[in-house]
Amino acid sequence: MLTCYACGARAESGQRCDCGEPLWYETDPAGVAWPDADAGGVWAFESLLPVGRPESGLATAAGGTPLVRAPTLDADGARVHVKLEGTNPTGSFKDRGSAVGVTAALAAGRERVGTVSHGNMAASMAANAAGTDLDCVVLVPADIPDERLARIGAYGPRVVRVEGDYGRLYHDSLDVAGVEFVNSDSPLRVAGQKTTVLEVLAERAPDVPDAVVMPVSSGGHASAAWKALREAEAAGLVDDPPRLYLVQAAACAPVAAAFDRGDEEVVRLAPDEVGETVAYSIANPDPPSGTRALAAARATGGAVLAADDDDIGAARDWMARAGFRVEAASATPLAALGRLRDAGEIEAGEDVVLVATGAGYGDDAPPESVETVRREGLAGALRAD
Amino acid sequence: MLTCYACGARAESGQRCDCGEPLWYETDPAGVAWPDADAGGVWAFESLLPVGRPESGLATAAGGTPLVRAPTLDADGARVHVKLEGTNPTGSFKDRGSAVGVTAALAAGRERVGTVSHGNMAASMAANAAGTDLDCVVLVPADIPDERLARIGAYGPRVVRVEGDYGRLYHDSLDVAGVEFVNSDSPLRVAGQKTTVLEVLAERAPDVPDAVVMPVSSGGHASAAWKALREAEAAGLVDDPPRLYLVQAAACAPVAAAFDRGDEEVVRLAPDEVGETVAYSIANPDPPSGTRALAAARATGGAVLAADDDDIGAARDWMARAGFRVEAASATPLAALGRLRDAGEIEAGEDVVLVATGAGYGDDAPPESVETVRREGLAGALRAD
Repeated sequence: MLTCYACGARAESGQRCDCGEPLWYETDPAGVAWPDADAGGVWAFESLLPVGRPESGLATAAGGTPLVRAPTLDADGARVHVKLEGTNPTGSFKDRGSAVGVTAALAAGRERVGTVSHGNMAASMAANAAGTDLDCVVLVPADIPDERLARIGAYGPRVVRVEGDYGRLYHDSLDVAGVEFVNSDSPLRVAGQKTTVLEVLAERAPDVPDAVVMPVSSGGHASAAWKALREAEAAGLVDDPPRLYLVQAAACAPVAAAFDRGDEEVVRLAPDEVGETVAYSIANPDPPSGTRALAAARATGGAVLAADDDDIGAARDWMARAGFRVEAASATPLAALGRLRDAGEIEAGEDVVLVATGAGYGDDAPPESVETVRREGLAGALRAD
Repeated sequence: MLTCYACGARAESGQRCDCGEPLWYETDPAGVAWPDADAGGVWAFESLLPVGRPESGLATAAGGTPLVRAPTLDADGARVHVKLEGTNPTGSFKDRGSAVGVTAALAAGRERVGTVSHGNMAASMAANAAGTDLDCVVLVPADIPDERLARIGAYGPRVVRVEGDYGRLYHDSLDVAGVEFVNSDSPLRVAGQKTTVLEVLAERAPDVPDAVVMPVSSGGHASAAWKALREAEAAGLVDDPPRLYLVQAAACAPVAAAFDRGDEEVVRLAPDEVGETVAYSIANPDPPSGTRALAAARATGGAVLAADDDDIGAARDWMARAGFRVEAASATPLAALGRLRDAGEIEAGEDVVLVATGAGYGDDAPPESVETVRREGLAGALRAD
């Protein structure tokens, strides 16, 4: 059963509520206990997931990432821990949601899964579907660079270049029949992604970190973090959950803008409000779970911030000098940490977890041929052969 | 205390025995029990290591990699499992040995660590030393490509381009004072690397895999795998240890050549016996633990094979289609599996573990300046400032 965090409505299926907000899975945290530290990965939390651990394949390997104490990143007395999501099988936290999405699709007898992505999520979905009975469809923009195509194509999915407004494809994909789209904030993906923070809590138990700082793009991972905190509290495992701080790239920061304005809703940015950023993987001008992420930050006593490219670049270098090589988007939490500390949002003596969402993989040669369809022809092109 | 596997001599310190063979750490496996599956990583085997778990830093995060059942890679009835070493913090198994090496150097009050490498080991040492009080020196060939320099340089080590015969630097480095060189088969690195196979055994217990297939280059990882099997047997945890199969790239296969000839020793290849290979990261014409690796394969009832680039490339693609994107060297075990199965070395119904040693990271921009010294000037250049 799915529920809407905003209006409380319930639904048997679907991705979004009639009120417009995204759905997530209802769970029963009663009797849940913490598993052993880093054992079991995503599936250590099976009782809180909509599907059980698969028998084989890459989906068994998601999660179980290290939480590393990093004294050289400490912020004026606040103790920093880094959650190293780049150690997931394809190099990012996306594997958590892909593993759950692929496994649930198989369990439901689906034949095809898909995703709208040209980065980490695309590679992750393709990898997790590879070696299963599922076909995988990845929708990419027509102008995707060759090296990104190469990374996705290696796993053998069906890659479809889509001409037209790529920003609207998320919504288009919800209407495509016959493909289980596991997008950035789909209920299955959020279910998998909540294990990032569940692992952090299990690892630190009985201590509880004071704050979790993570990048925010679609809002799917932030929503999942909030869900994890709610479930841990409902299970009686945590009395005083950490505050969630969400960080965007200043060049594309619709959630931070809404937070600053005191708004209840995140509004899509117009093209002239969006710039280029090194943290391109979190540059989403129309985040489908933006409003839910905003609610997460407020409900947990946190905040939403934006970091500019200079600070992100410096933070990325600083992280590497501490032993953590991450993609630019993953450096946004550290880029914002000094300000959080200066503002007294985070205090000396507190434990802060920075979620380093992805490793920043390189790329190699592109696949030899990729079909091209226009956006309008998408549903037709994806119709089962 | 260190011992020599070949002549049985013991030593308090050093990397190689007077007989010429490499040393490894003596351990006392009495009373050792398997830790929980994938919990704790390298440090779950603390009682078998020369140093205890550190309090913080990247070295806490090594190991704990997934062992994934991969039915689509099965070889005519032999069941395949992939040990995903690319999920280590810097993307390869090298982090296991770097973590132990760096931690031991700190515990011994050393000020500098180093390594001779321009690939995975270099990045791993630099990362594990970053954020500690240790300085790290990485010796690279003068003609190193920019993208490899970039990957290493990100962590801020001292990178030294060395002109002259790079193949002899391993031996040169043993004579450099003031730097703890943790090279491919140093006792500290072998101690850390044995946890790859210890984890496999713990994960599968009480079952025991029938065979482990892994790439071999310097012979350090293969030696470590053998050490793990010896310790598990000594601890009474395994009655019938798996056979070790080691695979080289045909273009540079001194260990396989010695195995084929029935020799007891591995002989350095002459320059005209070495070709180019896609599996460049395992192309070592003068493997310092080659003879020990040869002994490991023989003692466990295994073998040493060579795979040509066509087979390696095809195996790499096949692994990606099964969800595992690895560097070419890591595809050599699968490239050899069919032949092992055809030859009856591996039988239907057996469980086979393929060790996928590295993820194959991409690279980015090079560091701005790198000092250059000639090989002869090395000791001088490395003298403490």
